[in-house]
Amino acid sequence: MSHELPGEQENPDLELRIETLGKCRIDTPMAGVQFTEDHETVLYHSDFEDIERYLKQGLKPPAFESAGPRRKIYHDPSKLKCGIVTCGGLCPGLNDVIRAVVLSLIHHYGVQTIFGFRYGYEGLSSRHKHRPLDLTAENVDNIHGRGSTILGASRGPQDISDMVNTLDRMNVGVLFAIGGDGTLRGARAISEEIARQGLKIGVIGIPKTIDNDIRYVQQSFGFQTAVSEAARVLYSAHSEAIGARNGIGLVKLMGRHSGFIAAYATLASGDVDFCLIPEVPFSLDGLMAGLKTCLHEKKHAVIVVAEGAGQDLMEETGQRDPSGNQHLGDIGRFLKHHILKCFEQENMEVTLKYINPSYTIRSLPANAYDAVFCLKLGHNAVHAAMAGRTNMMVGFWAQNFTHIPIAAAVSTRHQVNPKGKNWSGVILTTGQPVHM
Amino acid sequence: MSHELPGEQENPDLELRIETLGKCRIDTPMAGVQFTEDHETVLYHSDFEDIERYLKQGLKPPAFESAGPRRKIYHDPSKLKCGIVTCGGLCPGLNDVIRAVVLSLIHHYGVQTIFGFRYGYEGLSSRHKHRPLDLTAENVDNIHGRGSTILGASRGPQDISDMVNTLDRMNVGVLFAIGGDGTLRGARAISEEIARQGLKIGVIGIPKTIDNDIRYVQQSFGFQTAVSEAARVLYSAHSEAIGARNGIGLVKLMGRHSGFIAAYATLASGDVDFCLIPEVPFSLDGLMAGLKTCLHEKKHAVIVVAEGAGQDLMEETGQRDPSGNQHLGDIGRFLKHHILKCFEQENMEVTLKYINPSYTIRSLPANAYDAVFCLKLGHNAVHAAMAGRTNMMVGFWAQNFTHIPIAAAVSTRHQVNPKGKNWSGVILTTGQPVHM
Amino acid sequence: MSHELPGEQENPDLELRIETLGKCRIDTPMAGVQFTEDHETVLYHSDFEDIERYLKQGLKPPAFESAGPRRKIYHDPSKLKCGIVTCGGLCPGLNDVIRAVVLSLIHHYGVQTIFGFRYGYEGLSSRHKHRPLDLTAENVDNIHGRGSTILGASRGPQDISDMVNTLDRMNVGVLFAIGGDGTLRGARAISEEIARQGLKIGVIGIPKTIDNDIRYVQQSFGFQTAVSEAARVLYSAHSEAIGARNGIGLVKLMGRHSGFIAAYATLASGDVDFCLIPEVPFSLDGLMAGLKTCLHEKKHAVIVVAEGAGQDLMEETGQRDPSGNQHLGDIGRFLKHHILKCFEQENMEVTLKYINPSYTIRSLPANAYDAVFCLKLGHNAVHAAMAGRTNMMVGFWAQNFTHIPIAAAVSTRHQVNPKGKNWSGVILTTGQPVHM
Amino acid sequence: MSHELPGEQENPDLELRIETLGKCRIDTPMAGVQFTEDHETVLYHSDFEDIERYLKQGLKPPAFESAGPRRKIYHDPSKLKCGIVTCGGLCPGLNDVIRAVVLSLIHHYGVQTIFGFRYGYEGLSSRHKHRPLDLTAENVDNIHGRGSTILGASRGPQDISDMVNTLDRMNVGVLFAIGGDGTLRGARAISEEIARQGLKIGVIGIPKTIDNDIRYVQQSFGFQTAVSEAARVLYSAHSEAIGARNGIGLVKLMGRHSGFIAAYATLASGDVDFCLIPEVPFSLDGLMAGLKTCLHEKKHAVIVVAEGAGQDLMEETGQRDPSGNQHLGDIGRFLKHHILKCFEQENMEVTLKYINPSYTIRSLPANAYDAVFCLKLGHNAVHAAMAGRTNMMVGFWAQNFTHIPIAAAVSTRHQVNPKGKNWSGVILTTGQPVHM
Repeated sequence: MSHELPGEQENPDLELRIETLGKCRIDTPMAGVQFTEDHETVLYHSDFEDIERYLKQGLKPPAFESAGPRRKIYHDPSKLKCGIVTCGGLCPGLNDVIRAVVLSLIHHYGVQTIFGFRYGYEGLSSRHKHRPLDLTAENVDNIHGRGSTILGASRGPQDISDMVNTLDRMNVGVLFAIGGDGTLRGARAISEEIARQGLKIGVIGIPKTIDNDIRYVQQSFGFQTAVSEAARVLYSAHSEAIGARNGIGLVKLMGRHSGFIAAYATLASGDVDFCLIPEVPFSLDGLMAGLKTCLHEKKHAVIVVAEGAGQDLMEETGQRDPSGNQHLGDIGRFLKHHILKCFEQENMEVTLKYINPSYTIRSLPANAYDAVFCLKLGHNAVHAAMAGRTNMMVGFWAQNFTHIPIAAAVSTRHQVNPKGKNWSGVILTTGQPVHM
Repeated sequence: MSHELPGEQENPDLELRIETLGKCRIDTPMAGVQFTEDHETVLYHSDFEDIERYLKQGLKPPAFESAGPRRKIYHDPSKLKCGIVTCGGLCPGLNDVIRAVVLSLIHHYGVQTIFGFRYGYEGLSSRHKHRPLDLTAENVDNIHGRGSTILGASRGPQDISDMVNTLDRMNVGVLFAIGGDGTLRGARAISEEIARQGLKIGVIGIPKTIDNDIRYVQQSFGFQTAVSEAARVLYSAHSEAIGARNGIGLVKLMGRHSGFIAAYATLASGDVDFCLIPEVPFSLDGLMAGLKTCLHEKKHAVIVVAEGAGQDLMEETGQRDPSGNQHLGDIGRFLKHHILKCFEQENMEVTLKYINPSYTIRSLPANAYDAVFCLKLGHNAVHAAMAGRTNMMVGFWAQNFTHIPIAAAVSTRHQVNPKGKNWSGVILTTGQPVHM
Repeated sequence: MSHELPGEQENPDLELRIETLGKCRIDTPMAGVQFTEDHETVLYHSDFEDIERYLKQGLKPPAFESAGPRRKIYHDPSKLKCGIVTCGGLCPGLNDVIRAVVLSLIHHYGVQTIFGFRYGYEGLSSRHKHRPLDLTAENVDNIHGRGSTILGASRGPQDISDMVNTLDRMNVGVLFAIGGDGTLRGARAISEEIARQGLKIGVIGIPKTIDNDIRYVQQSFGFQTAVSEAARVLYSAHSEAIGARNGIGLVKLMGRHSGFIAAYATLASGDVDFCLIPEVPFSLDGLMAGLKTCLHEKKHAVIVVAEGAGQDLMEETGQRDPSGNQHLGDIGRFLKHHILKCFEQENMEVTLKYINPSYTIRSLPANAYDAVFCLKLGHNAVHAAMAGRTNMMVGFWAQNFTHIPIAAAVSTRHQVNPKGKNWSGVILTTGQPVHM
Repeated sequence: MSHELPGEQENPDLELRIETLGKCRIDTPMAGVQFTEDHETVLYHSDFEDIERYLKQGLKPPAFESAGPRRKIYHDPSKLKCGIVTCGGLCPGLNDVIRAVVLSLIHHYGVQTIFGFRYGYEGLSSRHKHRPLDLTAENVDNIHGRGSTILGASRGPQDISDMVNTLDRMNVGVLFAIGGDGTLRGARAISEEIARQGLKIGVIGIPKTIDNDIRYVQQSFGFQTAVSEAARVLYSAHSEAIGARNGIGLVKLMGRHSGFIAAYATLASGDVDFCLIPEVPFSLDGLMAGLKTCLHEKKHAVIVVAEGAGQDLMEETGQRDPSGNQHLGDIGRFLKHHILKCFEQENMEVTLKYINPSYTIRSLPANAYDAVFCLKLGHNAVHAAMAGRTNMMVGFWAQNFTHIPIAAAVSTRHQVNPKGKNWSGVILTTGQPVHM
């Protein structure tokens, strides 16, 4: 039983069939490449016992369509115009993905016109009047290795039919939408409106989630870069903690719903004493008891908290951002004040340093791991698009790239399994109490 | 069909049963941890079509035993003495693995005596008289994040029965052997000698291969750090190439039998024009033709060559190192001289810069990715050891840690599949001719 | 006229004579080293015109005693016991300085006993009962390249005569005090109490100021590391700014009284539009006008503000920290709220990301530049101590290490000269209005 | 007495007068900037005793003209065309300097036409027919932070009058020549030919020497980046050395005539046992004796050798590169073979790893320190040019930028003073024998 799967795995009830715009009749203009056959799949489960349960019921075990270049393609590259849009917050590797998509369209298939829509879905909205960039091999040549997105991004939805009109008017045959949950829902809506109007425009989602919380994506681009920089911040927090008597380093890391960054950075650091994530509830009294023991034994402590952890301990804010995400309570500052207050009441002198590095992390260039990942991800998005796939997202499972219906991808979140091996690893590494 | 499997996959003929020293009767002293059941496995194949072939023949599809902590253990932690040995060349993460093994033995199981044998198998040989280090939580506390190995290493075999005598005399119950192909063969011989003598000493191999060439290990520790630094060197080679008229950057990277570092660094860089690996033969004329075209079009070129590539193009050296590895011809210098000679004959001025960064790469500290990997690897080695497993190695497959019989692991090598997706990605990225 | 001197330079009125404990009668046990003669000095001025003004009045131009090893020393190394203490906030290079002092005492002079007092001046106070560490060549061998201080630190003064009693009781002949303004004042008070009691204990201050604000120290240790990391954060801020429509990156950097880090990070980044420092007043209206122009022209803006800038724009807090430093108003959050409010009133959508990286910066290991600097600084502190100097601090001027009376060093601060070349460089680089 | 001056300092006999094209009559179009007056200077000496020797002889002490923006300029920015050329080997910061020159010309003075001549002096030679780039604010905006030079470079001289004809024909008023010794000699020859023809073209040299060996330049751009990366390589060499029994890490670093990189990297590393530079002769027997002692005591050793060291120990090659530099014997490989042979003869097993990282170092982007330095250097080159200065180079002395006649700059080299404080620091740090 794989350790990173959500609880839903027991009954995945997967609806994993991928839509296409039509039959692939055109020869792919690529040589020397290993083509992927349409019947190739990647199993959801990796333990044969899980698979046997399906077989015994006469069912096929759930599996994803394999990504990769096809022998025959749907779109005629000589006539095809494509568009790319980046939405939501920054994530390391955005420019790498843009470059990979553009260079693959140009060099692998011979596509000649690629629009870079500006500032997320705003760039598809007639109201905002942003002029798209012309993306060429020259102007994307040096963008990998640079943080941010050359297209700019924005949050929040735009009018769906307005956006479809823009695509239709500009004669765009494929739209690549790079973004998270909200962006993918938007891509699905665009895709459905396209179908309603009988247009032949493919919509390919490229999952962007620094939190690593999109379903059927075992590891998303930018995640390893984020973990790497987060571990660097934990080094600093540990330095601060050991540099003072009863020093406490408290770090808030990204992770609204899923604590992957906090968990992996904890494993990478080796110096964390408490890791708090949204998937594992804790009580303030439990944390304080553990913290006192830790200070007593070691004279210092390092605490990592994912931004979505412990929301039940604070009053709800009720507010939402333009993407519709609920404003979370600030668990970092909340814990800082609570811890300081508790020790003050007990007349115990502590030195607490609080660090919140989110913006510094997400705006970095992709590291080598993510550079490779972004390259493959971008290529596979193009292969899927050229093969006429639509209303789908490129996924990643058991080291393979896959095709995922957007509807399935946004149905629930990828989260740290509190009963899984990753979380056990965190418990074993920190030595923190299992229940706090 | 997974893209990184060697050609042998069509008929894996797997003999994957794991040996044990005896029955596990002792309760594991760990709480709040997800235990792994002995029947949990990880399938070798990820495409259901491959699995069906076995089912149709009435066979069970091949699968590995899952690694992880067991509810019951074999060794009594209060009496157990363990030993660790590091062999062969340096690799990023060696100290991280040592630390993970030591801290897991101490904190998770309560083992109190851990010997760090010095300078590889020499440390187990009575002839060399190296005194082992006492490894404690204190003296391994700060070693992660440091390159090299605090134990030192050496190449080459030692007398097997002498080493077993040392283990027996010192009352060692488990030996962790961290090393590559040769080290694992040594561990198997030690294990067999132990069995012959009827001793109850477990031998756990921890695969160390910066080249990533050990079978059933999809990604080995230190590999990502190596790729990351190699990509940094490719940046330099590209800088040199564009800084001169007809500039050529030529980089030799590690990879005696398997070109994974060269291939991944090429993907990470995005600036490589030719990637040459042992698995894909090329001719000098083919390379020169491609190089001339490239210089004509772009005025510069970057070439990456794995150290084991193109060996058929040079005369054999016939020599061997103390580990028994054949001395390879120096393909880097060979290509440098050949390319310069060719262009001189054609009166074409080029500027070639040759870089060979191997020692700089393998001696680095582990990056965050490898830090996490080493931690889990070390923990899983300890879990396997405590559960009485022996003559096995910890593997990694489809994102899961596994148990592999050493005999199976050393039977053949993990190589880049010339017909697989990784190599296709390289071809698509470099634009190099498929056949040279 | 050097560009980094404070306004006081016009009439330095320097009192730069260094105190000694007594005559140096012992031969230095070092060979092959360039000894510094007692008459060697480093001129305060580097323009001959400034020097001529003194000569015309029959005065000697002001100059510092040169640091360096002397032929004869005061303390007998075979009997000498030394102590080291680190005070105040973290700064990159603390462990490098500790290591340099310890290894120089041991290897260059043969001193055998070195106490590492724990947690700043607390370690010298009988009340706190911290046991000092024994510092040896072994236990400092690997501490360079690690952030924080192995001794721990604390803020605030302790009872002077109590600390002198500790030194006397433990037979300490030299105390090295590594710290900032407050620490140096403490060192002076200790030194004066020692003199009052007729003891022969040397007190050597080692200036630690990440802000680079200690007088007669052109560049302090850790400063270049801080600038380097600050520039990395500005990269992130710039990424955030260009990634959104009307994106604003706002970064608060260290610098209570002196804006050196903000100014140098601005020069290093090349992407900053506004740099605000304590030495150069600005108005909110001026900033907003400049910001609107900038967004209008470029669609994004990067603002750097030193923590001590614009204090006149906020209400005073009145509070002080244990070191006696007044709590500054939080200019970063103040500007964030002001800017957002202004644009909201004008119905202009902006995306502002605020970053405050202080703790992440100061806890880093020293970079190569600072590693060299710390080594030389530590060596020169030991040379001064062995030569019987006391109540002095090691300074750095015109690329030379110097001796500075502590009284002179703490008399006023080192600040960015608003009429100097560094600030002109900032103005030319940012293009910001000269008066805002 | 400053520690980095060459032996010539005792009688510098400086001829430091700077040439100009004519009187400055045009108002500088900059506001809020601290202008430098023509009478401002920077003293060569920093010890008053040295200065008194001149005064006693009725001489003015030697001093450099201060760099910086002038109130009045010579060239009319609205009509001025400028050219930039980069020559010789790569050096970190080349693109930063190009960017600083271009942006200063455009933003500070309003110059509208800037030619980027391609591939060094070839770009000025009619024979090579390279078309110059048009350098604009847009196309240099993102080049800082990238290694190499966007202009390309080449070695070797070109016909002087041909180059002057090109400048005249293209109506170039100022040429910025970025390069080392040979480039500066070329710039002087161009300047003299211009004067002979009565043309009004300024020639400003910008000293580029990763070895830091140009006279009157205390620290050149790229040097700190090189030291930083070299220290990283020394970390690897040390890792290799401690990872094996009798491990020896041997690193060859840049430094044909001057051992600054080797010396500073040694100081930065803290782990080097022997540092060998061109300025300090050594014998092979002395080195071997020291090495044996070191291995005996510590079981490992790290040796750093500058490429120009120990040339007297090898046979001369007699060859020269296109820049006219004599081919040095390869001291790195020579030492490697000598050391291995010696230990083999004595039947002592050692493991030696040899690393030569030159190309990897010089092709890196500038670090933050050098980024600041390059910015100021480029600005000061432009200020000098606009003020009509010619046949000069921008120098750096006692933390100030200066103007140096090219003739003086190329008269002799900047070298490590074997009797100075830097070298003493190396001796004290390594513990190596003073005479080997």
